[in-house]
Amino acid sequence: MTSAEDDAEPTGARPREIVRIHAYGRDGFTARDDTLAVERALEIHVAGADPLITMRTPGADAELTAGLMHGEGVIRSRDDIVYLRPAPGEDDVIRLMLKPEARGRLDRVERNTLATSACGVCGKPSFSPPTPGRDAATQAGPAQVTPELLLSLPDRMRADQGVFESTGGLHAAGLFDASGTLLSIREDVGRHNALDKLIGAALLEDRLPLSDRIVMLSGRASYELLQKSIMGGVPIVCAVSAPSSYAVALAEQFGVTLVGFLRGDRFNVYTHGERLAGTVD
Amino acid sequence: MTSAEDDAEPTGARPREIVRIHAYGRDGFTARDDTLAVERALEIHVAGADPLITMRTPGADAELTAGLMHGEGVIRSRDDIVYLRPAPGEDDVIRLMLKPEARGRLDRVERNTLATSACGVCGKPSFSPPTPGRDAATQAGPAQVTPELLLSLPDRMRADQGVFESTGGLHAAGLFDASGTLLSIREDVGRHNALDKLIGAALLEDRLPLSDRIVMLSGRASYELLQKSIMGGVPIVCAVSAPSSYAVALAEQFGVTLVGFLRGDRFNVYTHGERLAGTVD
Repeated sequence: MTSAEDDAEPTGARPREIVRIHAYGRDGFTARDDTLAVERALEIHVAGADPLITMRTPGADAELTAGLMHGEGVIRSRDDIVYLRPAPGEDDVIRLMLKPEARGRLDRVERNTLATSACGVCGKPSFSPPTPGRDAATQAGPAQVTPELLLSLPDRMRADQGVFESTGGLHAAGLFDASGTLLSIREDVGRHNALDKLIGAALLEDRLPLSDRIVMLSGRASYELLQKSIMGGVPIVCAVSAPSSYAVALAEQFGVTLVGFLRGDRFNVYTHGERLAGTVD
Repeated sequence: MTSAEDDAEPTGARPREIVRIHAYGRDGFTARDDTLAVERALEIHVAGADPLITMRTPGADAELTAGLMHGEGVIRSRDDIVYLRPAPGEDDVIRLMLKPEARGRLDRVERNTLATSACGVCGKPSFSPPTPGRDAATQAGPAQVTPELLLSLPDRMRADQGVFESTGGLHAAGLFDASGTLLSIREDVGRHNALDKLIGAALLEDRLPLSDRIVMLSGRASYELLQKSIMGGVPIVCAVSAPSSYAVALAEQFGVTLVGFLRGDRFNVYTHGERLAGTVD
Protein backbone atom coordinates (compact mmCIF):
# COMPACT_ATOMS: atom_id res chain seq x y z
CA MET A 1 0.00 0.00 0.00
CA THR A 2 1.37 3.40 -0.91
CA SER A 3 0.00 6.84 -0.33
CA ALA A 4 -1.40 8.85 -3.20
CA GLU A 5 1.76 10.96 -3.28
CA ASP A 6 3.88 7.99 -4.33
CA ASP A 7 1.88 7.44 -7.47
CA ALA A 8 3.17 8.71 -10.77
CA GLU A 9 0.74 7.31 -13.28
CA PRO A 10 2.43 7.34 -16.67
CA THR A 11 -0.47 6.70 -19.04
CA GLY A 12 -4.18 7.11 -19.47
CA ALA A 13 -4.79 3.42 -18.92
CA ARG A 14 -5.65 3.97 -15.25
CA PRO A 15 -4.92 0.57 -13.76
CA ARG A 16 -5.32 2.14 -10.31
CA GLU A 17 -7.76 4.32 -8.50
CA ILE A 18 -7.32 6.33 -5.30
CA VAL A 19 -9.92 5.99 -2.56
CA ARG A 20 -10.28 7.29 0.97
CA ILE A 21 -10.16 4.53 3.60
CA HIS A 22 -10.00 3.99 7.33
CA ALA A 23 -6.81 2.13 8.12
CA TYR A 24 -6.73 0.31 11.47
CA GLY A 25 -3.38 -0.32 13.16
CA ARG A 26 -1.72 -0.15 16.53
CA ASP A 27 -2.82 3.47 16.93
CA GLY A 28 -6.46 2.84 16.10
CA PHE A 29 -8.13 4.22 12.98
CA THR A 30 -6.54 6.71 10.61
CA ALA A 31 -8.24 8.15 7.55
CA ARG A 32 -5.96 8.12 4.51
CA ASP A 33 -5.84 7.60 0.77
CA ASP A 34 -5.32 4.14 -0.62
CA THR A 35 -4.68 2.73 -4.07
CA LEU A 36 -6.98 0.12 -5.63
CA ALA A 37 -6.47 -2.04 -8.67
CA VAL A 38 -9.13 -1.06 -11.17
CA GLU A 39 -11.54 -3.79 -12.29
CA ARG A 40 -13.92 -2.81 -15.07
CA ALA A 41 -15.86 -4.47 -17.87
CA LEU A 42 -14.41 -4.51 -21.39
CA GLU A 43 -16.84 -4.85 -24.29
CA ILE A 44 -15.33 -6.68 -27.24
CA HIS A 45 -17.32 -5.73 -30.32
CA VAL A 46 -16.71 -8.41 -32.91
CA ALA A 47 -17.85 -7.38 -36.40
CA GLY A 48 -20.90 -9.40 -37.34
CA ALA A 49 -21.19 -11.20 -33.98
CA ASP A 50 -22.62 -10.57 -30.54
CA PRO A 51 -20.39 -8.52 -28.26
CA LEU A 52 -18.33 -10.34 -25.65
CA ILE A 53 -17.72 -9.00 -22.18
CA THR A 54 -14.93 -9.61 -19.73
CA MET A 55 -13.87 -7.96 -16.49
CA ARG A 56 -10.30 -6.73 -16.54
CA THR A 57 -7.84 -4.08 -15.37
CA PRO A 58 -7.85 -1.43 -18.12
CA GLY A 59 -4.81 -1.18 -20.35
CA ALA A 60 -3.46 -3.61 -22.94
CA ASP A 61 -7.01 -4.29 -24.13
CA ALA A 62 -5.92 -5.33 -27.62
CA GLU A 63 -3.41 -7.76 -26.14
CA LEU A 64 -6.03 -9.12 -23.77
CA THR A 65 -8.51 -9.63 -26.59
CA ALA A 66 -5.94 -11.30 -28.82
CA GLY A 67 -4.77 -13.58 -26.00
CA LEU A 68 -8.28 -14.52 -24.92
CA MET A 69 -9.25 -15.46 -28.47
CA HIS A 70 -6.00 -17.36 -28.90
CA GLY A 71 -6.55 -19.36 -25.73
CA GLU A 72 -9.91 -20.50 -27.08
CA GLY A 73 -8.49 -21.43 -30.45
CA VAL A 74 -10.36 -18.69 -32.35
CA ILE A 75 -7.36 -16.57 -33.33
CA ARG A 76 -4.37 -18.70 -34.32
CA SER A 77 -2.06 -15.95 -35.58
CA ARG A 78 -2.25 -12.23 -36.19
CA ASP A 79 -3.10 -13.00 -39.80
CA ASP A 80 -6.56 -13.97 -38.57
CA ILE A 81 -7.18 -10.35 -37.54
CA VAL A 82 -8.48 -7.74 -39.99
CA TYR A 83 -8.44 -5.06 -37.29
CA LEU A 84 -8.28 -4.89 -33.50
CA ARG A 85 -8.42 -1.41 -31.99
CA PRO A 86 -10.00 0.63 -29.22
CA ALA A 87 -13.24 2.38 -30.11
CA PRO A 88 -12.46 6.11 -30.46
CA GLY A 89 -13.40 8.02 -27.34
CA GLU A 90 -14.57 4.96 -25.41
CA ASP A 91 -12.37 3.60 -22.63
CA ASP A 92 -13.97 0.20 -22.31
CA VAL A 93 -14.80 -0.85 -25.85
CA ILE A 94 -12.53 -2.58 -28.34
CA ARG A 95 -13.42 -3.44 -31.93
CA LEU A 96 -12.34 -6.66 -33.60
CA MET A 97 -12.82 -7.92 -37.11
CA LEU A 98 -11.77 -11.46 -37.90
CA LYS A 99 -11.10 -13.09 -41.24
CA PRO A 100 -13.86 -15.52 -42.25
CA GLU A 101 -12.12 -18.71 -41.12
CA ALA A 102 -11.44 -17.37 -37.60
CA ARG A 103 -14.96 -15.96 -37.52
CA GLY A 104 -16.23 -19.49 -38.18
CA ARG A 105 -14.22 -20.79 -35.21
CA LEU A 106 -15.77 -18.10 -33.02
CA ASP A 107 -19.25 -19.25 -34.07
CA ARG A 108 -18.40 -22.78 -32.97
CA VAL A 109 -17.12 -21.56 -29.59
CA GLU A 110 -20.31 -19.55 -29.13
CA ARG A 111 -22.55 -22.50 -29.92
CA ASN A 112 -20.57 -24.63 -27.51
CA THR A 113 -20.89 -21.94 -24.85
CA LEU A 114 -24.63 -21.81 -25.35
CA ALA A 115 -24.95 -25.54 -24.87
CA THR A 116 -22.95 -25.78 -21.70
CA SER A 117 -22.84 -22.47 -19.88
CA ALA A 118 -25.15 -20.24 -17.94
CA CYS A 119 -25.48 -18.60 -14.58
CA GLY A 120 -22.22 -16.75 -14.87
CA VAL A 121 -20.43 -20.03 -14.32
CA CYS A 122 -16.88 -18.91 -13.97
CA GLY A 123 -14.08 -20.93 -15.44
CA LYS A 124 -14.46 -23.16 -18.44
CA PRO A 125 -17.94 -23.35 -19.86
CA SER A 126 -17.10 -26.43 -21.88
CA PHE A 127 -16.96 -29.89 -20.39
CA SER A 128 -14.51 -31.62 -22.63
CA PRO A 129 -10.94 -31.17 -21.46
CA PRO A 130 -9.23 -28.52 -23.56
CA THR A 131 -7.39 -29.96 -26.52
CA PRO A 132 -4.64 -27.51 -27.26
CA GLY A 133 -3.29 -29.71 -30.03
CA ARG A 134 0.13 -28.18 -29.77
CA ASP A 135 1.93 -31.03 -28.04
CA ALA A 136 4.58 -31.04 -30.73
CA ALA A 137 5.47 -27.43 -29.96
CA THR A 138 5.51 -27.94 -26.22
CA GLN A 139 7.68 -31.01 -26.51
CA ALA A 140 10.38 -28.80 -27.95
CA GLY A 141 11.47 -26.07 -25.59
CA PRO A 142 14.85 -25.27 -24.10
CA ALA A 143 17.19 -28.21 -23.70
CA GLN A 144 17.59 -27.82 -19.96
CA VAL A 145 17.51 -25.06 -17.39
CA THR A 146 19.16 -25.02 -13.97
CA PRO A 147 17.39 -24.82 -10.60
CA GLU A 148 19.33 -21.61 -9.90
CA LEU A 149 17.84 -19.99 -12.96
CA LEU A 150 14.30 -20.84 -11.85
CA LEU A 151 14.98 -19.57 -8.32
CA SER A 152 15.99 -16.18 -9.75
CA LEU A 153 12.73 -15.61 -11.66
CA PRO A 154 10.45 -14.29 -8.87
CA ASP A 155 12.90 -11.53 -7.91
CA ARG A 156 13.48 -10.56 -11.51
CA MET A 157 9.74 -10.27 -12.00
CA ARG A 158 9.15 -8.31 -8.80
CA ALA A 159 11.85 -5.81 -9.76
CA ASP A 160 9.85 -5.00 -12.87
CA GLN A 161 6.41 -4.81 -11.30
CA GLY A 162 7.37 -1.57 -9.56
CA VAL A 163 4.75 0.97 -8.65
CA PHE A 164 2.06 -0.84 -10.56
CA GLU A 165 2.14 -3.53 -7.91
CA SER A 166 1.50 -1.02 -5.14
CA THR A 167 -2.15 -1.98 -4.84
CA GLY A 168 -1.37 -5.55 -3.80
CA GLY A 169 -4.40 -6.43 -5.90
CA LEU A 170 -2.85 -7.46 -9.17
CA HIS A 171 -1.78 -10.80 -10.55
CA ALA A 172 1.25 -10.86 -12.82
CA ALA A 173 2.47 -13.09 -15.62
CA GLY A 174 6.05 -12.84 -16.83
CA LEU A 175 7.72 -14.16 -19.97
CA PHE A 176 11.39 -15.16 -19.72
CA ASP A 177 13.85 -16.56 -22.20
CA ALA A 178 15.84 -19.69 -21.40
CA SER A 179 18.69 -17.64 -19.94
CA GLY A 180 16.34 -16.06 -17.39
CA THR A 181 15.99 -12.64 -19.03
CA LEU A 182 12.58 -11.07 -18.46
CA LEU A 183 11.11 -10.28 -21.87
CA SER A 184 7.72 -8.94 -20.86
CA ILE A 185 5.33 -8.74 -17.94
CA ARG A 186 1.60 -8.10 -17.75
CA GLU A 187 -0.68 -7.50 -14.77
CA ASP A 188 -4.39 -7.65 -14.07
CA VAL A 189 -6.89 -8.24 -11.27
CA GLY A 190 -7.60 -11.55 -12.99
CA ARG A 191 -4.75 -14.02 -13.21
CA HIS A 192 -6.03 -15.43 -16.51
CA ASN A 193 -6.18 -11.91 -17.93
CA ALA A 194 -2.53 -11.26 -17.07
CA LEU A 195 -1.55 -14.37 -19.01
CA ASP A 196 -3.91 -13.53 -21.89
CA LYS A 197 -2.27 -10.10 -22.17
CA LEU A 198 1.20 -11.70 -22.15
CA ILE A 199 0.40 -14.25 -24.85
CA GLY A 200 -1.73 -11.77 -26.79
CA ALA A 201 1.22 -9.36 -26.95
CA ALA A 202 3.38 -12.13 -28.38
CA LEU A 203 0.67 -13.01 -30.89
CA LEU A 204 0.33 -9.41 -32.07
CA GLU A 205 4.10 -9.30 -32.61
CA ASP A 206 3.99 -12.63 -34.43
CA ARG A 207 6.20 -14.33 -31.84
CA LEU A 208 4.10 -17.48 -31.28
CA PRO A 209 4.62 -20.29 -30.46
CA LEU A 210 6.70 -19.46 -27.38
CA SER A 211 8.55 -22.73 -27.65
CA ASP A 212 11.82 -21.62 -26.04
CA ARG A 213 10.27 -19.51 -23.30
CA ILE A 214 9.43 -19.77 -19.59
CA VAL A 215 6.21 -18.34 -18.15
CA MET A 216 6.11 -17.27 -14.50
CA LEU A 217 2.77 -16.76 -12.70
CA SER A 218 2.38 -14.75 -9.50
CA GLY A 219 -0.29 -16.98 -7.96
CA ARG A 220 -1.66 -20.48 -8.28
CA ALA A 221 -1.70 -22.57 -11.43
CA SER A 222 -5.26 -23.56 -12.31
CA TYR A 223 -6.03 -25.61 -15.38
CA GLU A 224 -7.03 -22.49 -17.34
CA LEU A 225 -3.55 -21.07 -17.01
CA LEU A 226 -2.07 -24.34 -18.24
CA GLN A 227 -4.49 -24.45 -21.14
CA LYS A 228 -3.54 -20.94 -22.22
CA SER A 229 0.18 -21.69 -21.82
CA ILE A 230 -0.12 -24.87 -23.86
CA MET A 231 -2.00 -23.03 -26.61
CA GLY A 232 0.90 -20.54 -26.59
CA GLY A 233 3.43 -23.36 -26.97
CA VAL A 234 5.17 -22.63 -23.65
CA PRO A 235 7.32 -25.57 -22.46
CA ILE A 236 8.03 -24.43 -18.87
CA VAL A 237 5.38 -22.91 -16.57
CA CYS A 238 6.31 -21.76 -13.04
CA ALA A 239 3.96 -20.56 -10.31
CA VAL A 240 4.57 -18.96 -6.93
CA SER A 241 1.81 -21.08 -5.40
CA ALA A 242 0.16 -24.46 -5.83
CA PRO A 243 -1.10 -26.08 -9.01
CA SER A 244 -4.45 -27.86 -9.11
CA SER A 245 -4.78 -31.53 -9.97
CA TYR A 246 -6.22 -30.72 -13.39
CA ALA A 247 -3.37 -28.32 -14.14
CA VAL A 248 -0.91 -31.12 -13.37
CA ALA A 249 -2.82 -33.57 -15.56
CA LEU A 250 -2.81 -31.14 -18.50
CA ALA A 251 0.89 -30.37 -18.07
CA GLU A 252 1.70 -34.08 -18.01
CA GLN A 253 -0.38 -34.75 -21.10
CA PHE A 254 0.97 -31.88 -23.18
CA GLY A 255 4.62 -32.15 -22.27
CA VAL A 256 4.86 -29.03 -20.09
CA THR A 257 7.35 -28.77 -17.23
CA LEU A 258 5.16 -27.49 -14.37
CA VAL A 259 6.91 -25.92 -11.37
CA GLY A 260 5.00 -24.78 -8.26
CA PHE A 261 5.75 -23.08 -4.93
CA LEU A 262 8.68 -21.29 -6.58
CA ARG A 263 9.73 -18.95 -3.76
CA GLY A 264 12.80 -18.37 -1.62
CA ASP A 265 15.26 -21.20 -2.17
CA ARG A 266 12.89 -23.98 -3.14
CA PHE A 267 10.29 -25.22 -5.63
CA ASN A 268 8.42 -28.35 -6.64
CA VAL A 269 8.53 -29.94 -10.08
CA TYR A 270 5.20 -31.62 -10.86
CA THR A 271 5.70 -32.80 -14.43
CA HIS A 272 8.36 -33.31 -17.08
CA GLY A 273 11.39 -32.81 -14.85
CA GLU A 274 13.61 -33.78 -17.75
CA ARG A 275 13.97 -30.09 -18.63
CA LEU A 276 15.61 -29.43 -15.26
CA ALA A 277 19.28 -30.19 -14.72
CA GLY A 278 19.77 -32.57 -11.79
CA THR A 279 16.29 -34.04 -11.24
CA VAL A 280 16.19 -37.56 -9.87
CA ASP A 281 13.84 -40.39 -10.75
CA MET B 1 2.82 -29.25 1.96
CA THR B 2 2.49 -32.50 3.87
CA SER B 3 3.63 -35.96 3.04
CA ALA B 4 1.15 -38.63 2.06
CA GLU B 5 1.48 -40.20 5.52
CA ASP B 6 -0.13 -37.18 7.14
CA ASP B 7 -3.28 -37.49 5.13
CA ALA B 8 -6.30 -39.16 6.65
CA GLU B 9 -9.03 -38.58 4.12
CA PRO B 10 -12.35 -38.93 5.91
CA THR B 11 -14.86 -39.08 3.06
CA GLY B 12 -15.25 -40.06 -0.55
CA ALA B 13 -15.35 -36.44 -1.67
CA ARG B 14 -11.63 -36.50 -2.56
CA PRO B 15 -10.72 -32.83 -2.37
CA ARG B 16 -7.08 -33.86 -2.61
CA GLU B 17 -4.94 -36.08 -4.74
CA ILE B 18 -1.45 -37.47 -4.08
CA VAL B 19 1.20 -37.11 -6.77
CA ARG B 20 4.89 -37.84 -7.03
CA ILE B 21 7.03 -34.73 -7.42
CA HIS B 22 10.64 -33.58 -7.44
CA ALA B 23 11.12 -31.12 -4.61
CA TYR B 24 14.11 -28.81 -4.93
CA GLY B 25 15.68 -27.37 -1.76
CA ARG B 26 19.06 -26.72 -0.20
CA ASP B 27 20.05 -30.37 -0.71
CA GLY B 28 19.11 -30.48 -4.38
CA PHE B 29 16.26 -32.59 -5.72
CA THR B 30 14.32 -35.13 -3.68
CA ALA B 31 11.53 -37.30 -5.05
CA ARG B 32 8.53 -37.39 -2.73
CA ASP B 33 4.75 -37.48 -2.58
CA ASP B 34 2.81 -34.25 -2.57
CA THR B 35 -0.82 -33.32 -2.07
CA LEU B 36 -2.79 -31.41 -4.71
CA ALA B 37 -6.15 -29.70 -4.46
CA VAL B 38 -8.47 -31.51 -6.86
CA GLU B 39 -10.01 -29.43 -9.65
CA ARG B 40 -12.59 -31.22 -11.76
CA ALA B 41 -15.64 -30.37 -13.86
CA LEU B 42 -19.11 -30.66 -12.34
CA GLU B 43 -22.04 -31.18 -14.70
CA ILE B 44 -25.23 -29.62 -13.43
CA HIS B 45 -28.13 -31.36 -15.14
CA VAL B 46 -31.14 -29.07 -14.89
CA ALA B 47 -34.41 -30.81 -15.72
CA GLY B 48 -35.68 -29.48 -19.04
CA ALA B 49 -32.66 -27.26 -19.72
CA ASP B 50 -29.16 -27.56 -21.13
CA PRO B 51 -26.57 -28.83 -18.67
CA LEU B 52 -24.28 -26.30 -17.01
CA ILE B 53 -20.64 -26.95 -16.29
CA THR B 54 -18.32 -25.51 -13.71
CA MET B 55 -14.85 -26.41 -12.50
CA ARG B 56 -14.65 -27.05 -8.77
CA THR B 57 -13.07 -29.02 -5.96
CA PRO B 58 -15.36 -32.05 -5.47
CA GLY B 59 -17.49 -32.13 -2.35
CA ALA B 60 -20.46 -29.99 -1.34
CA ASP B 61 -21.75 -30.09 -4.92
CA ALA B 62 -25.36 -29.46 -3.90
CA GLU B 63 -24.30 -26.44 -1.85
CA LEU B 64 -22.18 -25.18 -4.73
CA THR B 65 -25.06 -25.53 -7.18
CA ALA B 66 -27.52 -23.83 -4.84
CA GLY B 67 -25.10 -20.99 -4.13
CA LEU B 68 -24.19 -20.47 -7.78
CA MET B 69 -27.85 -20.28 -8.78
CA HIS B 70 -28.58 -17.96 -5.87
CA GLY B 71 -25.77 -15.59 -6.82
CA GLU B 72 -27.30 -15.24 -10.28
CA GLY B 73 -30.78 -14.65 -8.94
CA VAL B 74 -32.22 -17.93 -10.28
CA ILE B 75 -32.84 -19.67 -6.94
CA ARG B 76 -34.15 -17.26 -4.31
CA SER B 77 -34.92 -19.76 -1.55
CA ARG B 78 -34.92 -23.51 -1.11
CA ASP B 79 -38.62 -23.47 -1.97
CA ASP B 80 -37.57 -22.90 -5.57
CA ILE B 81 -35.98 -26.36 -5.63
CA VAL B 82 -37.98 -29.51 -6.44
CA TYR B 83 -34.87 -31.67 -6.05
CA LEU B 84 -31.11 -31.22 -5.99
CA ARG B 85 -29.04 -34.38 -5.60
CA PRO B 86 -25.99 -36.19 -6.93
CA ALA B 87 -26.59 -38.55 -9.83
CA PRO B 88 -26.35 -42.11 -8.47
CA GLY B 89 -22.96 -43.64 -9.17
CA GLU B 90 -21.53 -40.54 -10.86
CA ASP B 91 -19.00 -38.41 -9.00
CA ASP B 92 -19.25 -35.31 -11.11
CA VAL B 93 -22.92 -34.97 -11.99
CA ILE B 94 -25.65 -33.33 -9.96
CA ARG B 95 -29.33 -33.21 -10.88
CA LEU B 96 -31.49 -30.16 -10.27
CA MET B 97 -35.18 -29.59 -10.84
CA LEU B 98 -36.53 -26.09 -10.35
CA LYS B 99 -40.09 -24.92 -9.84
CA PRO B 100 -41.50 -23.16 -12.93
CA GLU B 101 -40.88 -19.60 -11.74
CA ALA B 102 -37.20 -20.22 -10.97
CA ARG B 103 -36.89 -22.16 -14.21
CA GLY B 104 -38.13 -19.04 -16.00
CA ARG B 105 -35.41 -16.98 -14.32
CA LEU B 106 -32.80 -19.50 -15.50
CA ASP B 107 -34.02 -19.10 -19.08
CA ARG B 108 -33.53 -15.35 -18.83
CA VAL B 109 -30.00 -15.77 -17.48
CA GLU B 110 -29.21 -18.17 -20.32
CA ARG B 111 -30.48 -15.77 -22.98
CA ASN B 112 -28.41 -13.01 -21.43
CA THR B 113 -25.37 -15.26 -21.40
CA LEU B 114 -25.84 -16.06 -25.06
CA ALA B 115 -25.96 -12.42 -25.98
CA THR B 116 -22.85 -11.37 -24.16
CA SER B 117 -20.53 -14.29 -23.57
CA ALA B 118 -18.25 -16.51 -25.55
CA CYS B 119 -14.68 -17.63 -25.67
CA GLY B 120 -14.67 -19.00 -22.17
CA VAL B 121 -14.61 -15.43 -20.92
CA CYS B 122 -14.07 -15.90 -17.23
CA GLY B 123 -15.84 -13.73 -14.74
CA LYS B 124 -19.19 -12.15 -15.41
CA PRO B 125 -20.55 -12.71 -18.85
CA SER B 126 -23.08 -9.93 -18.47
CA PHE B 127 -22.20 -6.30 -18.91
CA SER B 128 -24.75 -4.58 -16.74
CA PRO B 129 -23.50 -4.20 -13.19
CA PRO B 130 -25.15 -6.81 -11.01
CA THR B 131 -28.27 -5.54 -9.34
CA PRO B 132 -28.60 -7.61 -6.21
CA GLY B 133 -31.71 -5.70 -5.18
CA ARG B 134 -31.21 -6.56 -1.56
CA ASP B 135 -29.98 -3.23 -0.29
CA ALA B 136 -32.62 -3.25 2.41
CA ALA B 137 -31.26 -6.49 3.84
CA THR B 138 -27.65 -5.39 3.68
CA GLN B 139 -28.43 -2.08 5.33
CA ALA B 140 -29.47 -4.03 8.40
CA GLY B 141 -26.68 -6.13 9.87
CA PRO B 142 -25.09 -6.11 13.29
CA ALA B 143 -25.16 -2.78 15.10
CA GLN B 144 -21.41 -2.49 15.47
CA VAL B 145 -18.43 -4.79 15.77
CA THR B 146 -15.04 -4.01 17.30
CA PRO B 147 -11.69 -3.94 15.51
CA GLU B 148 -10.46 -6.64 17.91
CA LEU B 149 -13.23 -8.96 16.78
CA LEU B 150 -12.28 -8.52 13.13
CA LEU B 151 -8.59 -9.08 13.90
CA SER B 152 -9.45 -12.45 15.47
CA LEU B 153 -11.23 -13.85 12.39
CA PRO B 154 -8.27 -15.05 10.29
CA ASP B 155 -6.87 -17.19 13.11
CA ARG B 156 -10.28 -18.64 13.94
CA MET B 157 -10.72 -19.59 10.31
CA ARG B 158 -7.24 -21.10 9.96
CA ALA B 159 -7.77 -23.24 13.05
CA ASP B 160 -10.72 -24.85 11.30
CA GLN B 161 -9.15 -25.34 7.90
CA GLY B 162 -6.91 -28.07 9.32
CA VAL B 163 -5.57 -30.83 7.10
CA PHE B 164 -7.77 -29.81 4.20
CA GLU B 165 -5.61 -26.74 3.76
CA SER B 166 -2.45 -28.85 3.46
CA THR B 167 -2.33 -28.44 -0.29
CA GLY B 168 -1.89 -24.68 -0.14
CA GLY B 169 -4.10 -24.63 -3.20
CA LEU B 170 -7.50 -23.92 -1.73
CA HIS B 171 -9.41 -20.73 -1.17
CA ALA B 172 -11.64 -20.54 1.87
CA ALA B 173 -14.75 -18.60 2.79
CA GLY B 174 -15.90 -18.47 6.42
CA LEU B 175 -19.21 -17.41 7.93
CA PHE B 176 -19.12 -15.80 11.38
CA ASP B 177 -21.79 -14.43 13.66
CA ALA B 178 -21.51 -10.93 15.10
CA SER B 179 -19.72 -12.23 18.20
CA GLY B 180 -16.95 -13.74 16.06
CA THR B 181 -18.02 -17.39 16.30
CA LEU B 182 -17.20 -19.39 13.18
CA LEU B 183 -20.45 -20.95 11.95
CA SER B 184 -19.23 -22.64 8.78
CA ILE B 185 -16.32 -22.74 6.38
CA ARG B 186 -16.04 -23.97 2.79
CA GLU B 187 -13.01 -24.44 0.55
CA ASP B 188 -12.36 -24.77 -3.16
CA VAL B 189 -9.70 -24.18 -5.79
CA GLY B 190 -11.94 -21.33 -6.98
CA ARG B 191 -12.57 -18.50 -4.56
CA HIS B 192 -16.04 -17.86 -5.95
CA ASN B 193 -16.87 -21.55 -5.49
CA ALA B 194 -15.90 -21.45 -1.82
CA LEU B 195 -18.33 -18.57 -1.29
CA ASP B 196 -21.03 -20.23 -3.40
CA LYS B 197 -20.75 -23.35 -1.21
CA LEU B 198 -20.98 -21.23 1.95
CA ILE B 199 -24.05 -19.30 0.83
CA GLY B 200 -25.57 -22.37 -0.82
CA ALA B 201 -25.33 -24.27 2.47
CA ALA B 202 -27.19 -21.44 4.22
CA LEU B 203 -29.81 -21.42 1.47
CA LEU B 204 -30.40 -25.17 1.74
CA GLU B 205 -30.90 -24.75 5.51
CA ASP B 206 -33.24 -21.81 4.92
CA ARG B 207 -30.94 -19.39 6.74
CA LEU B 208 -30.92 -16.60 4.15
CA PRO B 209 -30.56 -13.63 4.19
CA LEU B 210 -27.38 -13.62 6.28
CA SER B 211 -28.19 -10.17 7.59
CA ASP B 212 -26.40 -10.46 10.95
CA ARG B 213 -23.35 -12.32 9.69
CA ILE B 214 -19.74 -11.62 8.71
CA VAL B 215 -18.10 -13.30 5.71
CA MET B 216 -14.33 -13.77 5.69
CA LEU B 217 -12.48 -14.51 2.43
CA SER B 218 -8.99 -16.04 2.26
CA GLY B 219 -7.84 -14.04 -0.75
CA ARG B 220 -8.73 -10.92 -2.66
CA ALA B 221 -12.16 -9.39 -2.97
CA SER B 222 -13.21 -9.14 -6.60
CA TYR B 223 -16.58 -7.78 -7.60
CA GLU B 224 -18.01 -11.28 -8.04
CA LEU B 225 -17.43 -12.03 -4.38
CA LEU B 226 -19.18 -8.82 -3.41
CA GLN B 227 -22.07 -9.56 -5.73
CA LYS B 228 -22.57 -13.00 -4.21
CA SER B 229 -22.28 -11.61 -0.66
CA ILE B 230 -24.81 -8.88 -1.41
CA MET B 231 -27.23 -11.42 -2.89
CA GLY B 232 -26.79 -13.36 0.36
CA GLY B 233 -27.61 -10.28 2.41
CA VAL B 234 -24.23 -10.18 4.15
CA PRO B 235 -23.53 -6.77 5.78
CA ILE B 236 -19.79 -7.20 6.56
CA VAL B 237 -17.28 -8.73 4.12
CA CYS B 238 -13.62 -9.13 5.13
CA ALA B 239 -10.74 -10.25 2.93
CA VAL B 240 -7.14 -11.17 3.69
CA SER B 241 -5.97 -9.30 0.58
CA ALA B 242 -6.95 -6.34 -1.57
CA PRO B 243 -10.35 -5.49 -2.99
CA SER B 244 -10.74 -4.31 -6.59
CA SER B 245 -12.19 -0.93 -7.47
CA TYR B 246 -15.44 -2.50 -8.66
CA ALA B 247 -15.79 -4.48 -5.44
CA VAL B 248 -15.47 -1.24 -3.48
CA ALA B 249 -18.04 0.48 -5.70
CA LEU B 250 -20.55 -2.36 -5.21
CA ALA B 251 -19.99 -2.45 -1.45
CA GLU B 252 -20.54 1.31 -1.26
CA GLN B 253 -23.70 1.14 -3.33
CA PHE B 254 -25.29 -1.77 -1.47
CA GLY B 255 -24.42 -0.78 2.06
CA VAL B 256 -21.77 -3.42 2.73
CA THR B 257 -18.89 -2.80 5.14
CA LEU B 258 -15.87 -3.95 3.12
CA VAL B 259 -12.64 -4.72 4.99
CA GLY B 260 -9.40 -5.64 3.21
CA PHE B 261 -5.84 -6.62 4.14
CA LEU B 262 -7.16 -8.16 7.36
CA ARG B 263 -4.00 -9.81 8.69
CA GLY B 264 -1.78 -9.53 11.76
CA ASP B 265 -2.77 -6.45 13.74
CA ARG B 266 -4.18 -4.30 10.97
CA PHE B 267 -6.86 -3.93 8.30
CA ASN B 268 -8.37 -1.34 5.97
CA VAL B 269 -12.03 -0.32 5.92
CA TYR B 270 -13.07 0.64 2.39
CA THR B 271 -16.78 1.31 2.80
CA HIS B 272 -19.48 1.81 5.42
CA GLY B 273 -17.18 2.17 8.42
CA GLU B 274 -20.22 3.02 10.53
CA ARG B 275 -20.48 -0.66 11.50
CA LEU B 276 -17.03 -0.50 13.13
CA ALA B 277 -16.62 0.92 16.59
CA GLY B 278 -14.12 3.80 16.61
CA THR B 279 -13.83 4.76 12.94
CA VAL B 280 -13.07 8.37 12.21
CA ASP B 281 -14.37 10.58 9.44
